[in-house]
Amino acid sequence: MSLFPTLLSVVTPDPPLVPSVGQAVLHLFCHVPSGPVSASPASGFDAEVVRRAVKSAQADGYQVIAAALLGHKADLGLMVLGPDLWRLRAFQTDVQASGAVPVAFYVSLTEISEYAAGVPEEMRQARLFPQLPPEGKSAFCFYPMSKRRSAEDNWYSLDFESRKELMMGHGKVGRTFHGRVLQVITGSTGLDDFEWGVTLFGVHPDDLKDCVYEMRFDEASARYAEFGPFYTGMVGDLDVVLTALGQGAPGGSA
Amino acid sequence: MSLFPTLLSVVTPDPPLVPSVGQAVLHLFCHVPSGPVSASPASGFDAEVVRRAVKSAQADGYQVIAAALLGHKADLGLMVLGPDLWRLRAFQTDVQASGAVPVAFYVSLTEISEYAAGVPEEMRQARLFPQLPPEGKSAFCFYPMSKRRSAEDNWYSLDFESRKELMMGHGKVGRTFHGRVLQVITGSTGLDDFEWGVTLFGVHPDDLKDCVYEMRFDEASARYAEFGPFYTGMVGDLDVVLTALGQGAPGGSA
Amino acid sequence: MSLFPTLLSVVTPDPPLVPSVGQAVLHLFCHVPSGPVSASPASGFDAEVVRRAVKSAQADGYQVIAAALLGHKADLGLMVLGPDLWRLRAFQTDVQASGAVPVAFYVSLTEISEYAAGVPEEMRQARLFPQLPPEGKSAFCFYPMSKRRSAEDNWYSLDFESRKELMMGHGKVGRTFHGRVLQVITGSTGLDDFEWGVTLFGVHPDDLKDCVYEMRFDEASARYAEFGPFYTGMVGDLDVVLTALGQGAPGGSA
Amino acid sequence: MSLFPTLLSVVTPDPPLVPSVGQAVLHLFCHVPSGPVSASPASGFDAEVVRRAVKSAQADGYQVIAAALLGHKADLGLMVLGPDLWRLRAFQTDVQASGAVPVAFYVSLTEISEYAAGVPEEMRQARLFPQLPPEGKSAFCFYPMSKRRSAEDNWYSLDFESRKELMMGHGKVGRTFHGRVLQVITGSTGLDDFEWGVTLFGVHPDDLKDCVYEMRFDEASARYAEFGPFYTGMVGDLDVVLTALGQGAPGGSA
Amino acid sequence: MSLFPTLLSVVTPDPPLVPSVGQAVLHLFCHVPSGPVSASPASGFDAEVVRRAVKSAQADGYQVIAAALLGHKADLGLMVLGPDLWRLRAFQTDVQASGAVPVAFYVSLTEISEYAAGVPEEMRQARLFPQLPPEGKSAFCFYPMSKRRSAEDNWYSLDFESRKELMMGHGKVGRTFHGRVLQVITGSTGLDDFEWGVTLFGVHPDDLKDCVYEMRFDEASARYAEFGPFYTGMVGDLDVVLTALGQGAPGGSA
Repeated sequence: MSLFPTLLSVVTPDPPLVPSVGQAVLHLFCHVPSGPVSASPASGFDAEVVRRAVKSAQADGYQVIAAALLGHKADLGLMVLGPDLWRLRAFQTDVQASGAVPVAFYVSLTEISEYAAGVPEEMRQARLFPQLPPEGKSAFCFYPMSKRRSAEDNWYSLDFESRKELMMGHGKVGRTFHGRVLQVITGSTGLDDFEWGVTLFGVHPDDLKDCVYEMRFDEASARYAEFGPFYTGMVGDLDVVLTALGQGAPGGSA
Repeated sequence: MSLFPTLLSVVTPDPPLVPSVGQAVLHLFCHVPSGPVSASPASGFDAEVVRRAVKSAQADGYQVIAAALLGHKADLGLMVLGPDLWRLRAFQTDVQASGAVPVAFYVSLTEISEYAAGVPEEMRQARLFPQLPPEGKSAFCFYPMSKRRSAEDNWYSLDFESRKELMMGHGKVGRTFHGRVLQVITGSTGLDDFEWGVTLFGVHPDDLKDCVYEMRFDEASARYAEFGPFYTGMVGDLDVVLTALGQGAPGGSA
Repeated sequence: MSLFPTLLSVVTPDPPLVPSVGQAVLHLFCHVPSGPVSASPASGFDAEVVRRAVKSAQADGYQVIAAALLGHKADLGLMVLGPDLWRLRAFQTDVQASGAVPVAFYVSLTEISEYAAGVPEEMRQARLFPQLPPEGKSAFCFYPMSKRRSAEDNWYSLDFESRKELMMGHGKVGRTFHGRVLQVITGSTGLDDFEWGVTLFGVHPDDLKDCVYEMRFDEASARYAEFGPFYTGMVGDLDVVLTALGQGAPGGSA
Repeated sequence: MSLFPTLLSVVTPDPPLVPSVGQAVLHLFCHVPSGPVSASPASGFDAEVVRRAVKSAQADGYQVIAAALLGHKADLGLMVLGPDLWRLRAFQTDVQASGAVPVAFYVSLTEISEYAAGVPEEMRQARLFPQLPPEGKSAFCFYPMSKRRSAEDNWYSLDFESRKELMMGHGKVGRTFHGRVLQVITGSTGLDDFEWGVTLFGVHPDDLKDCVYEMRFDEASARYAEFGPFYTGMVGDLDVVLTALGQGAPGGSA
Repeated sequence: MSLFPTLLSVVTPDPPLVPSVGQAVLHLFCHVPSGPVSASPASGFDAEVVRRAVKSAQADGYQVIAAALLGHKADLGLMVLGPDLWRLRAFQTDVQASGAVPVAFYVSLTEISEYAAGVPEEMRQARLFPQLPPEGKSAFCFYPMSKRRSAEDNWYSLDFESRKELMMGHGKVGRTFHGRVLQVITGSTGLDDFEWGVTLFGVHPDDLKDCVYEMRFDEASARYAEFGPFYTGMVGDLDVVLTALGQGAPGGSA
């Protein structure tokens, strides 16, 4: 089915491994060696392999979002969403074959939280099958988080109603950033080291800062949230992102 | 006895070192350099050496489960069970000789917990000598865990009856996932950095997520569990797994 | 617009990504291989590439502060301030292209804190658009910090008035170091792993030590501050800094 | 005095640096590249250098215990005991010269604890000058530990009598494993990152697991112990251990 | 002024950057590749460069103490004291140019603590300008430490009198080791990751152990101290130290 026969993605096994609801998500944050602005592979990294991997995944119906990251933790950010875990692994294998160095990937699934069980179907679809990236919101950050289980502040010892009320208050703060920030929360309990992955898309970088700062005063965060590392950058077309990382435009017609 | 004379496994010392009850278990999570889809060794990794190591261990009566992992932490997951620690080390040496980079291995023993001392013989055998992988459950995760010893929530300061009651409640939640998730718990106190290793096999990836999420509200987890890193992937035949990692089919008749 | 056509900085995308108020800031702490005192590139590091990257950023109106660092954590410190995140990433890409190894970068934005909402316009401009480095203050340190959220000392559970009072007392201690230490605080909640970055410029190295030590007794720090790693060094002209790192003067007229 | 003139051990300085009581101990846990079963040096590791280092140390009257380890943390374990710290460093230098990669070494001294001040002379000698490895106990583990100093469970705020009583109870549990487990505790306060090193030798691997598990319920451990990483493996003759690590028998008469 | 024109130390900038009181201190703990006993550079490390760096610093009036370390954390320990931070950086650059791998350096300043404000002038000079190493005390250890700021045990919330009393008691325990251990405490708040660096010189290695162990029961340590990693070794002439690390005597008359 794929147009890219030298990539691994053509040989994912049958049957696939898919969640019974929603989609699988993989965030890939990689180091990319900087090189001169040219089309030839430099420093052991071949940007063309990444371009082909992304097109191949998109051809199979998977969404791929690209971001140039700021900071030493990673250079290139890719977020891929789709049904089959084997296909996500094929994408990971393809990306790693480019010479990009994997430094922080994150495994999660889209989900309807237990506090949002009764949301309208449209909202339900938006959460399980988000259309990304949102228009006009190129400020990007990702961070994983868990709920705290200390003796005094133990989220998992609260009853459902208390947790639901806290989450409602939390969502209310978040909605004050409507239009400035889009939040995508995916579940990773049992799959990766934190319980959720949070991906934010903002109009301005200070929208991200103000949003996370405001929510930190909300009791659900102030008392009960544990945050992992933050990855920040700029969403763009893959070619724009690769150029920002010192990897020039492709030589050919790709 | 082995058909693979160039492997180390033929020279394990006599006498062996075996547990007085149950089996020894080694989880091996490795980085594997990605390469083109071909049978020739690429990037310093020789998949054929892994194939021979697995066949040799199986020929000696050891079970080996293979998984392709998602995420930057590791690419290839192998879980080997059998009696002799020297033989497990020979397997580790063989795998490392392939060029796979060891990043997170875990040492444990199958066991009957003190709370399950009186279980029927069939269940006892299933715990000491599990038959893996289970049919139709290719969603895989592994994580190590310990019981908490903080001043307020100290598992090891509870009396046996309290602990047993908590574990019974915990098991009850687990059993609601019967048919969707198989749980294999092995003991590692004194052997590795956490007190237990937990290996889950699920029908769907969200079965793993839902199971761990639900159990986190149980008091035994909410107040008393400390979790290590999570390794997630897809169980499959070794050749399927290696192919997913960019390592093609063997050149010969394997 | 740039005079340095071989650098990436000429191709940042349009439109830029800028904060709606203030400036974006990137601290870059890098390892630099030591080499003989000569103009030729040594050990894979080309100091000339760093020189060009700094000049190019300055030509685009960005401030760049250079420091030689003490300690194993990093050798070269660069702090760059300006409007466009894409341009900061171009600077990062340029610096990494020199062979300098990125070990600890920090992403933040200049800001007016909520406790300083009503400061005079001059002070407001000084905080949003600081002119750096300050004259005669070549002792440098940087550290990130967050406010604590433990059960007993939870900054984010305090009301605004209590926090404002604590911050006023904190600022009062800081002002006793006026003339000895200049403090630049930039916000990073949601952007990097801590909530603020603190950059200090002192007349003497013990001014930095005495200032941070004194403030640690203030309740806002004593009970509520969590500190990340400290990076310490000497601010100087880029050529002085590179010479101190074993990288000689440029061969030409630079 | 040494028969191995090309090794460093012949040139330790005079005077030596020795503890005023007991012996110095160095645990060396190293990565060893796996290679084919042959006598020739493989992958940059020369097993013959390790063989000569061990013989040289033994010729100088030092005890050396060898173990093949399970897990990614290390492959080869060596424990050396003797009087002179300079001689231990010579051994370390010799081992590192083999190409074995040092990943976790531990520095400690044999000691009579303050709670055992009055033990019979024979027991005192056994603690200060243990004869290792014990016969028939080839299951090996090592872990460092400290006593806790949290606000609620602060070992160092207890008076001597309370601590002595806790240690007596602790020893009582330990003695129930007499014949199954030999425990060697060496002191490292002020010398390495934890306060003690614990080396266990067991008949079966589950003896180690059961012993550490049982003792964890004892109050001295439950409330007051902090454990570092665990290193687990199989004690054996050096040639057996090196063979298990993929390093064949020596070519000559060494 | 320097006799070593190829070293960087001749080109430190003018004016220097010096503390307004006392001296600057840099501890350098490095990995050094082991090699055969010969004068030629081995494994990318050139001991002669370290010898020249030390002589050059000494010629400029700086004290340099050398130690061979035990353990995997580092091989070579150097401690340099003197006025100018730029000169310390030149020393660091010189040492790194030898191929020694920096793994743990520490930045601090000598100081008179606020609790010792009124000490006699001789003691004041001994603290600000210590003469090192002390005669006959070749057992060496270094560790950084901070005072605790937990909710229950917050050093920085205590008033001055309480802290002074605790420090007096602490000093009293320390003085019982007079003649066996020399303690050098340097301040690093705001300069490095902990608040103080502690360098101990002992007659025997168990003097270090006994001293740190005894002081841990003192309330100032038991409740209020947080310790970083410990580096342990043997002080000696630089040539003795380099020989112990497998680096032979210099080829010439040094």
